[in-house]
Amino acid sequence: MKIRVLTIILCCFYAFSFSQEDESVLKTIYTTSLTNGMSYQWLDHLSNQIGGRLSGSKNAELAVQYTKAELEKLGLDKVWLQPVMVPKWVRGEKETAYIVTANKDHKINQDVNICALGGSVATPKDGITANVIEINTYKDLELLGEEKIKGKIVFINRSWNQELVSTFQAYGGCASERYNGAAEAAKYGAVGMIVRSLSSRQDDYPHTGSMSYGDLPVEKRIPSAAISTNDAVKLSDALKENKDLKFHFKQSCQQFEDVLSYNVIGEITGSEFPNEYIIVGGHLDSWDLGDGAHDDGAGVVQSMDVLRLLKESGITPKRSIRVVLFMNEENGLRGGRKYAEVAKEKNEKHVFALESDAGGFTPRGFSFDCSDLMFSKIEAWRPLFKPYLIHYFEKGGSGADIGPLKNDDIVLAGLRPDSQRYFDHHHAANDTFEHVNKRELELGAATMTALVFLVDKYGTETITNIKEIKD
Amino acid sequence: MKIRVLTIILCCFYAFSFSQEDESVLKTIYTTSLTNGMSYQWLDHLSNQIGGRLSGSKNAELAVQYTKAELEKLGLDKVWLQPVMVPKWVRGEKETAYIVTANKDHKINQDVNICALGGSVATPKDGITANVIEINTYKDLELLGEEKIKGKIVFINRSWNQELVSTFQAYGGCASERYNGAAEAAKYGAVGMIVRSLSSRQDDYPHTGSMSYGDLPVEKRIPSAAISTNDAVKLSDALKENKDLKFHFKQSCQQFEDVLSYNVIGEITGSEFPNEYIIVGGHLDSWDLGDGAHDDGAGVVQSMDVLRLLKESGITPKRSIRVVLFMNEENGLRGGRKYAEVAKEKNEKHVFALESDAGGFTPRGFSFDCSDLMFSKIEAWRPLFKPYLIHYFEKGGSGADIGPLKNDDIVLAGLRPDSQRYFDHHHAANDTFEHVNKRELELGAATMTALVFLVDKYGTETITNIKEIKD
Repeated sequence: MKIRVLTIILCCFYAFSFSQEDESVLKTIYTTSLTNGMSYQWLDHLSNQIGGRLSGSKNAELAVQYTKAELEKLGLDKVWLQPVMVPKWVRGEKETAYIVTANKDHKINQDVNICALGGSVATPKDGITANVIEINTYKDLELLGEEKIKGKIVFINRSWNQELVSTFQAYGGCASERYNGAAEAAKYGAVGMIVRSLSSRQDDYPHTGSMSYGDLPVEKRIPSAAISTNDAVKLSDALKENKDLKFHFKQSCQQFEDVLSYNVIGEITGSEFPNEYIIVGGHLDSWDLGDGAHDDGAGVVQSMDVLRLLKESGITPKRSIRVVLFMNEENGLRGGRKYAEVAKEKNEKHVFALESDAGGFTPRGFSFDCSDLMFSKIEAWRPLFKPYLIHYFEKGGSGADIGPLKNDDIVLAGLRPDSQRYFDHHHAANDTFEHVNKRELELGAATMTALVFLVDKYGTETITNIKEIKD
Repeated sequence: MKIRVLTIILCCFYAFSFSQEDESVLKTIYTTSLTNGMSYQWLDHLSNQIGGRLSGSKNAELAVQYTKAELEKLGLDKVWLQPVMVPKWVRGEKETAYIVTANKDHKINQDVNICALGGSVATPKDGITANVIEINTYKDLELLGEEKIKGKIVFINRSWNQELVSTFQAYGGCASERYNGAAEAAKYGAVGMIVRSLSSRQDDYPHTGSMSYGDLPVEKRIPSAAISTNDAVKLSDALKENKDLKFHFKQSCQQFEDVLSYNVIGEITGSEFPNEYIIVGGHLDSWDLGDGAHDDGAGVVQSMDVLRLLKESGITPKRSIRVVLFMNEENGLRGGRKYAEVAKEKNEKHVFALESDAGGFTPRGFSFDCSDLMFSKIEAWRPLFKPYLIHYFEKGGSGADIGPLKNDDIVLAGLRPDSQRYFDHHHAANDTFEHVNKRELELGAATMTALVFLVDKYGTETITNIKEIKD
């Protein structure tokens, strides 16, 4: 028994050590990305020539065509489109909203900035005007009961937890208010739901995002929107002065039948193990308010550049390396599910998947969804990344699109860029190209490429070995 | 002998270990900064109500008054101004410059963006128009010789080394072109010097900065300016087409007599060792083109907040903690020199000095200028900072203003924020408040406070002990 354990450990160290040659390869990868990267140029096109790419939209279609054409220029072994049916939701006219306040002489309407949540129904043509009940979380609805809610607009004013260093953790703390708020409020007879924008910043941008009515019948669905953080404060203050004020909002969004769209895939076929797949990706769709530059144009162009940087750095992968540009992460995850479904059907052995979907900011490292043993081996590569100020190697989540690939054999990973500014822009009109820094984006692409290079070179066979020994 | 070494090592471990209580203090410090920090509000005033604060200017005076008044509100034990004579250089009217090109029919003037370098002389009233000779570094002047340079404008077009992950290293690679270029070019009879802006970005902003004529007699001094990176490319391309083109530039800057200004100092007097000083600071002056928000408004407000955050977190320092807002870092370092001079005169024992002068970006850690032994002890605190994603503890430089305090006993340190965006803004008109992220700034203030807390609690006595044993 002892001998067996020793063998495993030795085998692991052998499999995951690294050489001076690796240091030099990483240097080449980073230098190439910083001096001859394509990610920034691609992102410029995706953001400024195409723009927001909501699933089912014309722009999403243009983005499919553009990225496919760009991948085809790279001399990969294969580039193809993987069909997937996606939901089609359309915002319609720009939303309007105001707080109706009145003094003894006349009504005053104070305009506020809102946007419909993705998937919401429209208001009646002339909008909704109703009293407002402010709560902190949809869980408060039960305490209040139907009597206090019926006929009103529920305003969920849950504030961002600024104490948390990880802004993703703070986001996680409010996301269900946006996602479930309308369905829950509707159950108590609310006529509309307004949620404070999920943003780390006080400003005038409303932030959209997906919501769900769950199993609520169509006739019971109520319109829901996000209000900017500044206007959430304004509305809350106004309610403190006059709890009987009325709020008006109008939106004309519509849900259509599903439409055909695509995941865009490119592959360098492995020279030794062509049937082992390593994938790297981001999602091609985005919300419609901004250009989707950080979410997730950045992840798309970085992933595309991984394959290009491998080639430019003279690396011939042993395993098949795929870039997968997933469609419909934002409001359905259909692309991620489709890719995993097809991979399973074809019995493709995926050993590693890496997603970049946390913005094009300075990379800090990765989080890994894998066994402790596997993680301890990956951690041994950490010193290789230190010259590039990549220190963060932790266990944790990976990415929504690659989640459906999860099984006991695959290692899932997510690029972890600096998160401080991400939710200033996330799902809002200011998620635009000028907020992406070229060097930060390129450092991310290089960091991803370096990890893919190491995984390809050293494989993930230790897991398999150990499983075999166990079996 | 062996026993003595062991004693030293044990003593060091004792002195620098940390406790669970420290973890909880750091948590309080970070939470307070992120939820109740003052740095962002102070920076808003400094940037938007005052603006660029070049030494000797009205704005510099306003900044002295404002920060003194704000420190006085904090209930510190002492707040005072330390007089220091500073240079006064004034830019005058906005500079103009163009490339004179001509085709057979008519002259065409292509406007370009330049700014005078700090300390430069003016051009004659109508500007200078002359042929241009492009070089990569002022060291090329010697190879060319007077014959090829005389009567021309020397254009030093040294490009930024994008390969380097540390942008400060890339800056260091070109800084002497800006600083020495004019003096060197003048020796060979040049009539003007134009340097490519020291910036990591391709854009239209010229970046100023200090230059020196060394011991060049006044009558030999030639005007010098920085040209934006986009226009450096434009000029270089134009020269490739026509090496005989002329370049015109006009600037009306002036150097005046030195004027009286101040370092602003606040102190919490130590409860146990009032005669041991820990200082934390940034520089109050800035260049005149932008608001000096990152350089170094950020360092100023973070340093002010260190003393406030200590108080708000209920910490009673054992040693005297001073915030020092240095005047004239940008074009003279008079404030830093004055502070060290007075400290020496008064025989004040300074044990630790920390400067923040690298922008208000996400903090990555610190660099320390101290002995290896001391550094290994400080490094033992690293785990305390990990929850805040502070990983970088390295030996290296600290800050220009605290440099004059250097001796064998003091530990000097510099806050090291993420450097990728710093030189997009440094010394340019786009160094403005809107480019500073609130959370990034506040994380920096908290990180500085945490280090000051630990240094104060555990002291730097190991160094002294070791010295005593050696003696």
